[in-house]
Amino acid sequence: MKSKIKDKLSIKQFAKEIISGNRIILSKAITLVESSLPADNESAQKIMGEIMPYTGRSIRVGITGVPGVGKSTFIEALGKYITSLNKKLAVLALDPSSKHSKGSILGDKTRMEELSNDPLAYIRPSPTKGSLGGVSAHSRETMLLCEAAGFEVIFIETVGVGQSETTVHGMVDFFLLLMLAGAGDELQGIKKGIMEMADAMVITKADGNNVKKAELAKKEYQNALHLYPLTTSGWVPPVTTCSAINNKGIKEIWELIIKHHETMKANGYFDKNRQQQNLAWMHETVLQHLQNSFYSNKKIKKTLISLENQVIDGKMPAINAALKLLEAYKKLTVDN
Amino acid sequence: MKSKIKDKLSIKQFAKEIISGNRIILSKAITLVESSLPADNESAQKIMGEIMPYTGRSIRVGITGVPGVGKSTFIEALGKYITSLNKKLAVLALDPSSKHSKGSILGDKTRMEELSNDPLAYIRPSPTKGSLGGVSAHSRETMLLCEAAGFEVIFIETVGVGQSETTVHGMVDFFLLLMLAGAGDELQGIKKGIMEMADAMVITKADGNNVKKAELAKKEYQNALHLYPLTTSGWVPPVTTCSAINNKGIKEIWELIIKHHETMKANGYFDKNRQQQNLAWMHETVLQHLQNSFYSNKKIKKTLISLENQVIDGKMPAINAALKLLEAYKKLTVDN
Repeated sequence: MKSKIKDKLSIKQFAKEIISGNRIILSKAITLVESSLPADNESAQKIMGEIMPYTGRSIRVGITGVPGVGKSTFIEALGKYITSLNKKLAVLALDPSSKHSKGSILGDKTRMEELSNDPLAYIRPSPTKGSLGGVSAHSRETMLLCEAAGFEVIFIETVGVGQSETTVHGMVDFFLLLMLAGAGDELQGIKKGIMEMADAMVITKADGNNVKKAELAKKEYQNALHLYPLTTSGWVPPVTTCSAINNKGIKEIWELIIKHHETMKANGYFDKNRQQQNLAWMHETVLQHLQNSFYSNKKIKKTLISLENQVIDGKMPAINAALKLLEAYKKLTVDN
Repeated sequence: MKSKIKDKLSIKQFAKEIISGNRIILSKAITLVESSLPADNESAQKIMGEIMPYTGRSIRVGITGVPGVGKSTFIEALGKYITSLNKKLAVLALDPSSKHSKGSILGDKTRMEELSNDPLAYIRPSPTKGSLGGVSAHSRETMLLCEAAGFEVIFIETVGVGQSETTVHGMVDFFLLLMLAGAGDELQGIKKGIMEMADAMVITKADGNNVKKAELAKKEYQNALHLYPLTTSGWVPPVTTCSAINNKGIKEIWELIIKHHETMKANGYFDKNRQQQNLAWMHETVLQHLQNSFYSNKKIKKTLISLENQVIDGKMPAINAALKLLEAYKKLTVDN
C-alpha cells in the first residue's frame, strides 16, 4: 500500500523541509514514524537517514512525576523561561495509559495553553499505547526529527508510574524527577528505581502554606540522596523547590540543567553517554523485533497459554516450557 | 556426543537419588545443568521435569553487598545459626567476575570453613562467566535441584556490583543488602537500583570502635528508606546492624526473614510473586535464546562491528542499523 502521508514530496525534499524548520512537514514526518503501514515506515527510515547529520545538537531533558505533581504547570513555566531566552523548545509527551482522559498527560494542548501558542515551542503527544515496540520504538526518532528541525531543547515527559521511565532515562542527557512535599502516600505512585535515576529532584508547589513543608522535604531528600550510590558521571543530584504558578525557582532549574550540561561536556561523559545510548537503542530494536516476531506467531500464541498455565501451577519448570516454545518456533521458521 | 556425567543411571534413578538427598548425585545434576554439551542439557531438562513436584518448598534468600562488606563471615554466621535450628541450608554463590581470585566470592570453600564442614549445609559456587545465558541460565535450575534434595533454606550470594542482582532479585523471596557503616566511598561500588530492591538492609561489622558508626548509619538509612517508594508487597524494609564475628544481631536477621515469610504467605504475595517469577523466567529464557542465536550468527557478527561504528559515529540512526541487521538475519534463516 502506498503511503498516504508522504504526499508527492521526495525523501530529499521532505528532509530539506524538516531541516528548514517547516513544522507541517515535521509533524507529517512524525506521523510517518508512528504509522503502522510498512510503506510509511520505509519512507520514515529513509528520511531518518537524510536528517541524521542535523541531529544530536539539543539538550535532551526527561521530566517525570506522578499525576498530581503539577507537571503541566511546571513544564509551561520552565518552557516559557527557555523560550524567553530565545531558544526553540520541543515538548514530547509519552503516556502509555493515554486512553484515560482524566489525569492523562496527553489529550489536547490546552493544558499548556501559553506554551502551545508560543512560536518558539512545539508540543507533540506520542501515542505509545498499542505500538508494538512500546515507548522506545518511535519516541527516539521523533526526538531526532525535532532536533533536525532546529529545536535546541527537547523535553520528554512521562508519568513516573510505568516502564517508560527507564526508556526515557536511556534517551536523555538529564533526568528530572518532580516530587510533592509530604513524604507520605504520594510516594507510593512512583516506580521503584526512578529516584535513583534522577539527575535532579524538584519539590513542586512550594507556595502559600506549602513552602515550609517543601523546604523540609527538600532537606529530607537531600539527606537521602546523599546515601545513594554515586551516578556514573560523578554528578551529585541536587534537590530544589519551585513554585510554577509564582514562577519561583524555575530559572534556577534551567541553570542547573545548563551547569550539568557543561560539566558533562567538559568531563567527556556527555559524548560517551550519547554513544552508549545509541548502541543500546540499536540492540533494543533488534531485541524488540526478535521478540515481536516470536510472540506474534499464531502457533506460538496458541501453545503459550497452556504452557504458561503449567508454569504457573508449578507443573513444568519454566526453562522446559521455554525450550518447548523455542523448538516449536524453530520448526515453524524452518518449515516456512 | 554422549554425556560423560550422567553415568549409567536412568533419568528416574537420577531424580530419585536427588530427592533422597544424595549429594554426589545432586552435584552431578548441577554439573549437567551447567554443561555446554547438548546431550547433557537434554538430560538436565528431563531431570528437571522429574524433580519439579519436589521443588518450591524452601525459603529463598538473596544476599548481596560489595567486596569487603564481610559477606562470607556474615553467611557463615547466619548459616550456622540456621543449621543450629536443624534446618538444611544450601549456599549458591554467583560471581560473574570469577576469574579474579582476590576478592572473589568463589574460589575454594575455605572462606566458609565451618559451614562447609557442617553436614546440614551445602555450598556450591556457580561459574556464570562465559555461560551464554548469564546468571539466570543455570542458577534457577540449581536452586530447584537443591530444593528437591531437601534444602529448606537457599542463600544466593552475589557481589552487588553487576547485572546479576536484578536476576537474583527475580529468583528469591527475600533480598538482603549488606552495607558498611560510613556512607562515603564504600557506596560507590553498589550498583544503582539495588538499594530500592532490598527487603532488608544490614550494616555489617558493628563491633569494636565501629558500633557507634554502625548505629548512626542505621538511623540514616532508616530515614532514607522511609522516603523510598513502598514495595509492591507492602513490606517496609527494616535496617539492622550485626557483628558476625561476635555473633550479634544474627538471630534477629533470621527472625526478620521468617516474619517476612509469614507475612507474605498470609497476604498472598508469596505465591503471587513466585508465579510471576516463574513466568518471567520462561520469557527471559525465550528472549535469551532468540538473542543468542541472533548474535552468535557468523554473518551477523561480521556486519555488526561496522554498523556499531556507524551508530557510534552518528552516521546512521540506530534504528536503521537494527533494521539492516534484522533483514540480513531474516535472509539467512530463510536461505538455510
